Amino acid sequence: MKQGLFISLEGPDGCGKSTQITFMEQYLKQEGYEVVVTREPGGTDISEQIRKVILDKDNMAMGDTTELLLYAAARAQLVSEFIKPAVDAGKVVICDRFVDSSAVYQGIARGLGIDMVYAVNSYALQGMMPKRTFLLDLPAQEGIKRKRGQHELDRMELQKAEFHEKVAQGYRTLAAMHKERIVIIDAMKPADEIAAIIREELQDLL
Amino acid sequence: MKQGLFISLEGPDGCGKSTQITFMEQYLKQEGYEVVVTREPGGTDISEQIRKVILDKDNMAMGDTTELLLYAAARAQLVSEFIKPAVDAGKVVICDRFVDSSAVYQGIARGLGIDMVYAVNSYALQGMMPKRTFLLDLPAQEGIKRKRGQHELDRMELQKAEFHEKVAQGYRTLAAMHKERIVIIDAMKPADEIAAIIREELQDLL
Repeated sequence: MKQGLFISLEGPDGCGKSTQITFMEQYLKQEGYEVVVTREPGGTDISEQIRKVILDKDNMAMGDTTELLLYAAARAQLVSEFIKPAVDAGKVVICDRFVDSSAVYQGIARGLGIDMVYAVNSYALQGMMPKRTFLLDLPAQEGIKRKRGQHELDRMELQKAEFHEKVAQGYRTLAAMHKERIVIIDAMKPADEIAAIIREELQDLL
Repeated sequence: MKQGLFISLEGPDGCGKSTQITFMEQYLKQEGYEVVVTREPGGTDISEQIRKVILDKDNMAMGDTTELLLYAAARAQLVSEFIKPAVDAGKVVICDRFVDSSAVYQGIARGLGIDMVYAVNSYALQGMMPKRTFLLDLPAQEGIKRKRGQHELDRMELQKAEFHEKVAQGYRTLAAMHKERIVIIDAMKPADEIAAIIREELQDLL
């Protein structure tokens, strides 16, 4: 039996995760791996319904704890219905955001604390943590500038500049806490250079 | 300053909570109290959106932990946006279901355990617990029979008979654990007799 692999990408909105995921998927498929790609919040029918509630820009009255619990609920469903079965079946799972996003957005930027985030999420994870996480590090303002050109901003993207600054800084803090797992990459580099760095890391893993 | 009061009603679907809430509201208003009524899951705009996801009968793939976290998220929003401000303003808050429902439905009937339910919900409650809880005790089959005559059953109501049996029994277990707070009333009694019992309890409280 082939062993599955779980990889996540993290970083502020606009850091270029989607582009890199396309490169990763192509590369891994060429190498003969069965690859599935998913995203958070979302990735299952039920989790996408939860995503709509979380990101709806009319839901500005949402409390921080509500937000934390909704992300955890969407994650619980994604893990049990998609990630765990795929990894158990020997597939490579690439996930656009995972629990590190909650640690940074709700734990650090909202100020709920990383401990509370992990305590709540411990029920959602079923022991599933990414084997490697690629953090695309970007100055806060740059990410939102990029997003603004792409689509109407959602509730999270519409947070104040100060919030996005805390997110960017929070990611660096988290990466320093998990050096063995989180690989920081400067997201201002050209996309093909970033792809090459990720490819090299993947070769070590596979 | 008048002191607020938080009261909940619990019991299996079809036990007659809505009818009793109408009686309670009338009685308390006559007595000069400012009364607000709400329900779980729901009660705020965001919580009602979460309610739709929880109860949608197309969401049968929902995992037990997802369900637990969604109820907790809806509750967190209801507490912070509605219950806590109302009690702080000196009002009487009557809530159709509260955290006891999660203890019984997710903790006992789903088998996640009461400890896990309270651990997750501790983040949602902000210390708000009902001062008194009226449990309308009903044989499991009777409740669902009543609901079937009223509307199309939702995802929770559509659970197997065995699940509803565990709920009915779970409520009795929970009431035995919290004798000082939970008042059990036989829901097979006529509605006006039940209303009289509740009225007497309320007189002691106010």
